[in-house]
Amino acid sequence: MNQNRLDPVVIEKITALIGDRFTTSQAVRDQHGRDASFHAAMPPDGVAFVESTEEVSQIAKICFQYDVPMIPFGVGSSLEGHILALNGGISIDLSGMTDILSVNAEDQDCRVQAGVTREQLDQYLRADGLFFPIDPGAHASLGGMVATSASGTNAVKYGTMKENVLGLTVVMSDGRIVTTGGRSRKSSAGDDMTSLFVGSEGTLGIVTEIQLRLHGRPEQVAAAVCSFDDLENAVQTVIATIQVGVPVARMELLDAASIAAVNQHSHLSLSEKPTLFYEFHGTENGVKEQSEIVSDIVQDFGGGDFDWATREEDRNRLWRARHEAFWATKELKPNHEVWSTDVCVPVSILADCIVQTQQDIDENDLTAPILGHVGDGNFHVLILLDPDNEEDVQKATAFNSRLVKRALDMGGTCTGEHGIGLGKMGYLEAEQSTAIPLMRDVKSVLDPKNLMNPGKIFRLKDAS
Amino acid sequence: MNQNRLDPVVIEKITALIGDRFTTSQAVRDQHGRDASFHAAMPPDGVAFVESTEEVSQIAKICFQYDVPMIPFGVGSSLEGHILALNGGISIDLSGMTDILSVNAEDQDCRVQAGVTREQLDQYLRADGLFFPIDPGAHASLGGMVATSASGTNAVKYGTMKENVLGLTVVMSDGRIVTTGGRSRKSSAGDDMTSLFVGSEGTLGIVTEIQLRLHGRPEQVAAAVCSFDDLENAVQTVIATIQVGVPVARMELLDAASIAAVNQHSHLSLSEKPTLFYEFHGTENGVKEQSEIVSDIVQDFGGGDFDWATREEDRNRLWRARHEAFWATKELKPNHEVWSTDVCVPVSILADCIVQTQQDIDENDLTAPILGHVGDGNFHVLILLDPDNEEDVQKATAFNSRLVKRALDMGGTCTGEHGIGLGKMGYLEAEQSTAIPLMRDVKSVLDPKNLMNPGKIFRLKDAS
Repeated sequence: MNQNRLDPVVIEKITALIGDRFTTSQAVRDQHGRDASFHAAMPPDGVAFVESTEEVSQIAKICFQYDVPMIPFGVGSSLEGHILALNGGISIDLSGMTDILSVNAEDQDCRVQAGVTREQLDQYLRADGLFFPIDPGAHASLGGMVATSASGTNAVKYGTMKENVLGLTVVMSDGRIVTTGGRSRKSSAGDDMTSLFVGSEGTLGIVTEIQLRLHGRPEQVAAAVCSFDDLENAVQTVIATIQVGVPVARMELLDAASIAAVNQHSHLSLSEKPTLFYEFHGTENGVKEQSEIVSDIVQDFGGGDFDWATREEDRNRLWRARHEAFWATKELKPNHEVWSTDVCVPVSILADCIVQTQQDIDENDLTAPILGHVGDGNFHVLILLDPDNEEDVQKATAFNSRLVKRALDMGGTCTGEHGIGLGKMGYLEAEQSTAIPLMRDVKSVLDPKNLMNPGKIFRLKDAS
Repeated sequence: MNQNRLDPVVIEKITALIGDRFTTSQAVRDQHGRDASFHAAMPPDGVAFVESTEEVSQIAKICFQYDVPMIPFGVGSSLEGHILALNGGISIDLSGMTDILSVNAEDQDCRVQAGVTREQLDQYLRADGLFFPIDPGAHASLGGMVATSASGTNAVKYGTMKENVLGLTVVMSDGRIVTTGGRSRKSSAGDDMTSLFVGSEGTLGIVTEIQLRLHGRPEQVAAAVCSFDDLENAVQTVIATIQVGVPVARMELLDAASIAAVNQHSHLSLSEKPTLFYEFHGTENGVKEQSEIVSDIVQDFGGGDFDWATREEDRNRLWRARHEAFWATKELKPNHEVWSTDVCVPVSILADCIVQTQQDIDENDLTAPILGHVGDGNFHVLILLDPDNEEDVQKATAFNSRLVKRALDMGGTCTGEHGIGLGKMGYLEAEQSTAIPLMRDVKSVLDPKNLMNPGKIFRLKDAS
């Protein structure tokens, strides 16, 4: 374990501020030094459980004065080592900032503190007939979802965090409190500072409040499952559906291995074949029309009949199973971890990319279900590995490199929704080689002491 | 007229590069020193008609070496003095960069040079059954539309430039060529440099290529016009339509004065009352369903019957009339200019904002039609004024200040789609007081010599 590197004065000052909500206990530090990924833990030197923007600002001022790194922490569900304390410092735990500050049903927007989780918000909004569509698999906090530019199953219809964040409150490294954006549905008022923070993974500032765009709960919702004899036909169905322009709300692929895992974990009895999970939102007629068009496309590619989940509890069961695929996969082999990687490619070449990836998995004898938000061209591979087994780690690392290279060669991106964190820094260099110097410039001026989640996304110009 | 302040060496070097496509002729400079606004012209010292990203890069290197300001120029249709050469320098005219570099119909994306206009692109895409929805009134270039984060009539359904730009090629002030974004529909790969340039009004770099997201042409399109006895009921109809969640493609308000102007200019015979222009996109059934729901809402607020434009030529005539409202208004008084201002507010308070604005116009005896993209909460006031009449200018300036203040007090923004330019710098300070220092920081590091369209959007920290 790391030695605690905090200046006692820092401990004293922060403790004076928030009392026993600041801790240097090893257990709490350990818990804040790992995310949901395979990365080895790197605990911070202390954890501050904050309750307000003002507290975050005060703590940042202390950290700025004493050159202490700050790492914003939501629920720890990130997947590329985002919250590991590479250079020590203080984990700013925002999970206690759970106030839903305002909901404006008429304008379909709300303002929340960064610790509000998507489930909490969803429960809250039901009474108003509204919902917030972004649903990464984890029980993530909305602050964390801003940080990684999260998306999930509904992005094909409703967009990602980028399209659904209207404004932010951010604490900068020196403790300044900045408000970006506003409540209007659009604005051309100056440089877009909101978008600069969305996806910046806590490296530019600590997001404490978020103004979100909401959506009306659809009048009618219908979900269906449909299986295929091979992966390629399932993916071709997706491509055709997107190209025809059917406004499906969700269109998820699970390969046979994923279905097997999900069946076991969630006590389902789906055919263990490549399968598409669909959801349609709209008016009664609209949903009927969409599902008829998609059903025709499915037939064209030899898919089976739609198995409909019409009751809300059946739909919820289905989507819960989909969202628990990560845990389901983890149960496939005892003492193994899941390395969940993601890439995203233009939809037209998704079939090639997935089929080649499947071949790669087979040839290298990996246990690695493929699944994902294929309507966006985004898919995940859940690589099972024993992190203590050198050969496992090497095989998984080499596979991940080939996967990302394949996606980049096809005009895609090294991550559709997980972000860069520590795990994909090298790939970002390949993908955004001319844009990284700009990111460095922006980082250097907005976080001049390199205290905000240091060591993530890209190497600093002057670092080795 | 300004003296030409260019170092003869600069003229010589740029001429060596692009020959007679570089000019210092007064007529061309004058033409590049004014936009479509009432702002007095400020001509650049020279105009470079560029044909490639490489040429822009070479010119930027010369300008960087000799500290010459660079002002990107598309068609000059901006509305807040964006392209005025406040500190002289060179206008980089991209109107010759009109190559459509690639269209990928399967993925519904394309890559264009910055000088391609929306009409050119629209014509080109017809054969592929695709369209690009962003349509500001002007025959704008796509580079200019990136610069101002343009939107227009379709934004209520398809979003603005922010949601439809996937990536950019940008030349920085020192001549570096940077590529941002990519072809995937989504990405979490690093800080969002694409969004940073969208809406930056040429102050951070010169956009030379744009990767755009396209949309399939809808199976069915129907347009309708419907008039109301008063403005408030028209706006309440809009609010109710948005709140019910009908996915209208266009929903435009023209007040009685706008209709009068449009009737005269475009030889139409619409009732001279507050009027909504609608367009519905979808399947045959979908369009029918949407229009029935909206028709019911219209009845609830005492609106007249829908007057349908079912044939494409009738629809085009209608929308052309809408888009020419600026010119139609200008014709209302000879020797007058139109000061087109825009604000955007949360939709729920749009009625209050518009009704108060109408009262303000009446009380101050202004000729100032109100119209706009009310589905987004965005509206324009076209203030007619004689720019040589001091009283006219003062009255218009005072009215504009009250309009913006009203919008800001209601939680809105000082511009929904025109941008800040010179005209709204003071209002941006009021709206984004804590975010402007970040914008300044970003500007200072990406354009360290302040050569990129200097003097726009915000004052630099050290400037008076």
